[in-house]
Amino acid sequence: MKQMTGKQSISFAEPVYIEGSAAVVGEMEKEGPLGAYFSHTLSDAMCGQESWEEGESELQLAAAKLAMQRADVKPEQIRMVFAGDLLAQSIASSFGLVNLNCPLYGLFGACSTIGEAISLGAMAVAGGYGDRVLAVTSSHFGTAEKEFRFPLAYGNQRPPSASWTVTGSGACVLGKRKGKEKITGITTGKIIDYGLKDNQNMGACMAPAACDTICQNFVDFNRGPDDYDCIVTGDLGIVGKEILLELLKKKGYDVAGQHRDCGIMIFDSARQDTGAGGSGCGCAASVLAAYLLPKLESGEWKRILFVPTGALMSKVSFQEGRSVPGIAQAVVIEREEDL
Amino acid sequence: MKQMTGKQSISFAEPVYIEGSAAVVGEMEKEGPLGAYFSHTLSDAMCGQESWEEGESELQLAAAKLAMQRADVKPEQIRMVFAGDLLAQSIASSFGLVNLNCPLYGLFGACSTIGEAISLGAMAVAGGYGDRVLAVTSSHFGTAEKEFRFPLAYGNQRPPSASWTVTGSGACVLGKRKGKEKITGITTGKIIDYGLKDNQNMGACMAPAACDTICQNFVDFNRGPDDYDCIVTGDLGIVGKEILLELLKKKGYDVAGQHRDCGIMIFDSARQDTGAGGSGCGCAASVLAAYLLPKLESGEWKRILFVPTGALMSKVSFQEGRSVPGIAQAVVIEREEDL
Repeated sequence: MKQMTGKQSISFAEPVYIEGSAAVVGEMEKEGPLGAYFSHTLSDAMCGQESWEEGESELQLAAAKLAMQRADVKPEQIRMVFAGDLLAQSIASSFGLVNLNCPLYGLFGACSTIGEAISLGAMAVAGGYGDRVLAVTSSHFGTAEKEFRFPLAYGNQRPPSASWTVTGSGACVLGKRKGKEKITGITTGKIIDYGLKDNQNMGACMAPAACDTICQNFVDFNRGPDDYDCIVTGDLGIVGKEILLELLKKKGYDVAGQHRDCGIMIFDSARQDTGAGGSGCGCAASVLAAYLLPKLESGEWKRILFVPTGALMSKVSFQEGRSVPGIAQAVVIEREEDL
Repeated sequence: MKQMTGKQSISFAEPVYIEGSAAVVGEMEKEGPLGAYFSHTLSDAMCGQESWEEGESELQLAAAKLAMQRADVKPEQIRMVFAGDLLAQSIASSFGLVNLNCPLYGLFGACSTIGEAISLGAMAVAGGYGDRVLAVTSSHFGTAEKEFRFPLAYGNQRPPSASWTVTGSGACVLGKRKGKEKITGITTGKIIDYGLKDNQNMGACMAPAACDTICQNFVDFNRGPDDYDCIVTGDLGIVGKEILLELLKKKGYDVAGQHRDCGIMIFDSARQDTGAGGSGCGCAASVLAAYLLPKLESGEWKRILFVPTGALMSKVSFQEGRSVPGIAQAVVIEREEDL
């Protein structure tokens, strides 16, 4: 059974349901504009562990466990886990999820990873490879600054275009059991490199990838902006959003009415001094679980296009003067009306 | 259509074929025991580029292109790429494959990544999500030493249990077009952590994961060692192999007759001073393409269990005194007799 549509999308013959989802975030995220939507926050920046990395692992595990609890499944009922984070060699996931004792595929798509995890997870369920799978990603301000930027104690200045890594994790249990939110399609992203080299302006680096995936989604599904109640990018931030809207306009699409960006939504940049907005694997993931999915559940929205965006760079590639390519993975999520 | 078998395996209702495969390796690999099987080698350690990282990207691209050429497909016929490497944030893949302009999912499974890539690729083809996908991984001695160990110029001494990262890349085009080698099943690995902390003895760290996945494969498919002509681990090396055989014996399986290890095969450790053997994402990948698949094609073997193994650690996790968990992803590859 072919489920391909267009050039790079999949239209699932039978939808895959989000049986349970959860977000766990840090203090700053709780104090942000979406604070009321986040029910679970960290005890402290290290989650009672001895390093930020161990803390991020705990965070990811907590989100995974909460999503399973809400889906009313136990780890042994999860056929496969699709997980990733921003750290070198994805250690937040590897150390965080080891005790779940589930079969696992590690992923890396930078901040787009939750889109990748949900895409591959939905493919696995729809393909008959598992009745239930788990998609989970995380990021942490402390681990990300250490991995990519400066020692926190150094207190470096940031340009306004820089983003602020979200301390958070989001998880979804995907399965066949009918529920209120369903995944009906995906569009797999390509790596798009416009040659930009500024890792303090990742929104600009990722916007072309978001544009590419969104346009391809429109073409592959024969849809336009009006077919979605909301088109949500991951963490383009204020600068990247403007570029995306401009790029899409040049392609003939005006998405100004539908577009939201998780990075812009999660912080109040003026008040919280978070530059262009939030970023990280945990940004789109936690906003999806805590804010976007409930809007579908309540019926306020019928169909959204969730497009987490990633900047495919490392410390080494940056130091070697290379560009920052972007990638965006799109997931079509709809409200199940037939319940 | 459910294609699950046992607790953590998939038995594909219709097999997925390896339509083309290729390996590109470095000089030391060419001078090793499998040298005669490697038709394509690097021009120099940097592949004509200015850094090892750029060199590894070129290497991965070269293997991908050669596999596509042998499968007689163009990049635009590849529906999805599943790619990864050992570097932080998988930059070898991101920079190497950008110009293919294919939809892509980035993976991280340490040295098990080619098993993960082929598993997910086969799931995609069998699920009807793409007529043709590409699985490709790479590693490079220069980039890996820089990422994980010491500056090469430092000339540090290595214990005999340490492995030597393979400079190489292997790629497979997977599809529905009947050919001589087919993927009939997979067993998804779990993260297994015995608490070992020596990153100079990764074979020992990964052996328990290999044991776990191999046993699960036997149980899920109701098979034993004799059902495979060869059970090939990725890069356990001399020390890890011994541990694996011992662990499997305790579980009641004697695989001494069937077991091979790509890391042991690729170098002559006594002559080449490569310690316990080769390792890296490119080790199992290049040995698969250049040596294992041709044995199936020639009819010498009918069915093999390909089990790349990965050590899920990073520089940071090691420096923080954490253990080295392992993971192993198994793929059942058979000769197509009905041609």
